[in-house]
Amino acid sequence: MSFLQKFIDKIQKENLFQKKDQLLLAVSGGIDSIVLCELCSQAGFEFKIAHCNFQLRGEESERDEAFVKSLGERYSTEIFIKKFDTEKYAEEKKISIQVAARELRYEWFEELIASTTGKLEPTTKKFSETSNNKHRTLYILTAHHANDNIETLLMNFFKGTGIKGLQGIPVKQRKIIRPLLFAKRGEILAFSKVNSLSFVEDSSNLSDKYTRNYFRNQLIPSIRKVFPEVEDNLLHAIERFKEIGMLYEQAIQLHKKKLLEYKEHEIHIPVLKLLKSIPLKTIIYEIIKEYGFTAHQTDDVLHLLKSESGKYISSSMYKIIKDRKWIIISPHNSLQAATILIDKNDNKIVFENGELEISKFVKSDTILSTESSIATLDAKDIIYPLLLRKWKQGDYFYPLGTKNLPAGRPGKKKLSRFFIDQKLSLTEKEKIWVIESNKRIIWVVGKRIDDRFKITGSTTNVLKISFNER
Amino acid sequence: MSFLQKFIDKIQKENLFQKKDQLLLAVSGGIDSIVLCELCSQAGFEFKIAHCNFQLRGEESERDEAFVKSLGERYSTEIFIKKFDTEKYAEEKKISIQVAARELRYEWFEELIASTTGKLEPTTKKFSETSNNKHRTLYILTAHHANDNIETLLMNFFKGTGIKGLQGIPVKQRKIIRPLLFAKRGEILAFSKVNSLSFVEDSSNLSDKYTRNYFRNQLIPSIRKVFPEVEDNLLHAIERFKEIGMLYEQAIQLHKKKLLEYKEHEIHIPVLKLLKSIPLKTIIYEIIKEYGFTAHQTDDVLHLLKSESGKYISSSMYKIIKDRKWIIISPHNSLQAATILIDKNDNKIVFENGELEISKFVKSDTILSTESSIATLDAKDIIYPLLLRKWKQGDYFYPLGTKNLPAGRPGKKKLSRFFIDQKLSLTEKEKIWVIESNKRIIWVVGKRIDDRFKITGSTTNVLKISFNER
Repeated sequence: MSFLQKFIDKIQKENLFQKKDQLLLAVSGGIDSIVLCELCSQAGFEFKIAHCNFQLRGEESERDEAFVKSLGERYSTEIFIKKFDTEKYAEEKKISIQVAARELRYEWFEELIASTTGKLEPTTKKFSETSNNKHRTLYILTAHHANDNIETLLMNFFKGTGIKGLQGIPVKQRKIIRPLLFAKRGEILAFSKVNSLSFVEDSSNLSDKYTRNYFRNQLIPSIRKVFPEVEDNLLHAIERFKEIGMLYEQAIQLHKKKLLEYKEHEIHIPVLKLLKSIPLKTIIYEIIKEYGFTAHQTDDVLHLLKSESGKYISSSMYKIIKDRKWIIISPHNSLQAATILIDKNDNKIVFENGELEISKFVKSDTILSTESSIATLDAKDIIYPLLLRKWKQGDYFYPLGTKNLPAGRPGKKKLSRFFIDQKLSLTEKEKIWVIESNKRIIWVVGKRIDDRFKITGSTTNVLKISFNER
Repeated sequence: MSFLQKFIDKIQKENLFQKKDQLLLAVSGGIDSIVLCELCSQAGFEFKIAHCNFQLRGEESERDEAFVKSLGERYSTEIFIKKFDTEKYAEEKKISIQVAARELRYEWFEELIASTTGKLEPTTKKFSETSNNKHRTLYILTAHHANDNIETLLMNFFKGTGIKGLQGIPVKQRKIIRPLLFAKRGEILAFSKVNSLSFVEDSSNLSDKYTRNYFRNQLIPSIRKVFPEVEDNLLHAIERFKEIGMLYEQAIQLHKKKLLEYKEHEIHIPVLKLLKSIPLKTIIYEIIKEYGFTAHQTDDVLHLLKSESGKYISSSMYKIIKDRKWIIISPHNSLQAATILIDKNDNKIVFENGELEISKFVKSDTILSTESSIATLDAKDIIYPLLLRKWKQGDYFYPLGTKNLPAGRPGKKKLSRFFIDQKLSLTEKEKIWVIESNKRIIWVVGKRIDDRFKITGSTTNVLKISFNER
């Protein structure tokens, strides 16, 4: 089978795109992307060309841009060119040049895709002029090939990847398609020779490029000396790893389904059940990574499972809080959270029902407020962080001022019972929040403080919390 | 923490063995195994020593054996020595020298373990002389270390492994324990220097050794140039791959539970359900590999799923047979099988109920048997292979000689109905087998042939099957 036929076959068999779809080829001007152009042309696909000028190689970058522009005539098609100030972008975002180039490239592609239906501004004429665009999907085609895939796999492997990194470069990723992934470098070279294609050479020594070249020219040949089949072995392995990845994902989804309880904006996980899950570390990592936590924080979560209530760890967007027999993943944005941590230094907390103002002072003879919207508490026994959360079934406290037991202390009372005594309606009950310190409720917010935390003769420091209902 | 302390810690934390257990150290005389001896001695573990003399390096092999024998005095312990004719074994089994050495080594270890309770014959005195052996487990300790693990991982990876090969060398494998897997070569070297240990150098150029040396001295240093952390990265990756392997196994078990129906000695898998399973190839491979099928046969099974009834593929012990909406994994040993293939050239089949004798001849005027234990059939419409199997609910046929329909042909009848008419007891029904050709039952064995396959005036070739009940 000819190389062209193999190319067409792959596209059909793997259902990569339809002949009627709009194709935009990402063309650097190097051999791989030039071969991709020629294959698409010979296959009779209609396509346009996009070229990124990263302006990193002075004259050479301009030469490449001009060369790609010249393809417009050869293939009677339109060329989109975009110049990037890659160095500035990398500096501003504090990332490496190669990461910057990759981000800029794919960001531009996403833009091009987003504006599919005829709003693109090509260098020469309007993309929209092509008739009948409405029902045609726009795909971006890149020229990554089998050897790129092997090099990527090896680099990921040596960096210490999980199962994701072993699956190589995806053939189809949203609207980006890599129809040359099946082809080896040798086949591409042979095709370019037979078709007398001209292309530009990239003298770049970007460090990613450098590493790739090192793998290509030094390392892989060394491995081939002892394992002559290494490249084919790795290509087959990628296919296997993809399936292993799917099975991995299935198992993870099952564990999540068993463990995670979604409550409004939070996720509640029973600690005992989690501790019994095998393999614990990976399951924890797969749960937390979606909320911005890193692999390194997995050990912190393991530690948290055995910590006291109120301990927590943070990512940029979320907190993971230990709350008695649960760990709770809760957004920092407290307006959405149903479990909020109050630290020692917090003086204002905004939550669903309103605002809390928190202050501390030394007890004086000033008469303390008795309003139910203000809690004045003995600071002595209060342990931080406090937890502000919705009440739940099973909650109890020692309500201040209820009938004393024979021993002279108020009795322990379930909140559900307390609400009945207070004649709260269902709607009112649903809106009740509590503040907890070290597993003990200190205040049923806006209703009653706990007797154990009341101001007494021996109190020296007072914690005052005022509730302003929304 | 000292290296010795790390060693003891690892053993305790990972619960590798108890101080009271019997330890037999596999000692080649090289630096790694000598360090293992010294560590066990300094840790206060009681141990004995086993040495394999593979007789592959002439004088050097004898030197090593003598050196290991000399350790008996140093550690006041017993030494077990075994000489192997490795070359002869490799030749006889047609395997490489390094595979032979590994097999011989571990076979001997298994023997030593099997004869734990004091039946071992040491070179000098009886292993059994150690008192109180009864409740002590015997473990074999080998000196594999972290760098061995990295090298094994890399070799497996380049050979194109699945998830199993990425999990490195197991720390504990039945009774074989590798307590040095945590240690890097540098630590072992440092410990041997501080303790002024003598050891022998192995000049071996076994190809496995050669490959390892190449990895150690050439490849890994080359990778380190671009990824300085590569060794630590790979050690961490092994830990992750172990957990990925567990999740993979969980997902596979779930798929098997959904797909496999165990029927006596056979496994029945519904084709439609299997075809819907994702990822199909890996699931098929995981099902069939237990029955001696190779990864390469996965594609054959994929093909079989879409083939006609009666097609099959074989491993040394099993057949996988397509039978209408099922594929059936069935042992070759037909006495155990409940689904047996009859090929064109078979003339005798032994099965649970007895024997079938099969012959073909040209129709003559000889009077054909009418005994129900003999089927005489028109060979014309019979398609091979035939399936001999137990009858099942839903089976039907066109029994010869029952009341004709208006059209002059006997009616289609369910086997269950036929058995009622025949007044068969439950026990009798349970013993009924049928022979099927291309999804049509041609004979209810020992009971009645199908009308569609009867001998007629136009018959030229006859297929005769005689049933001799056991």
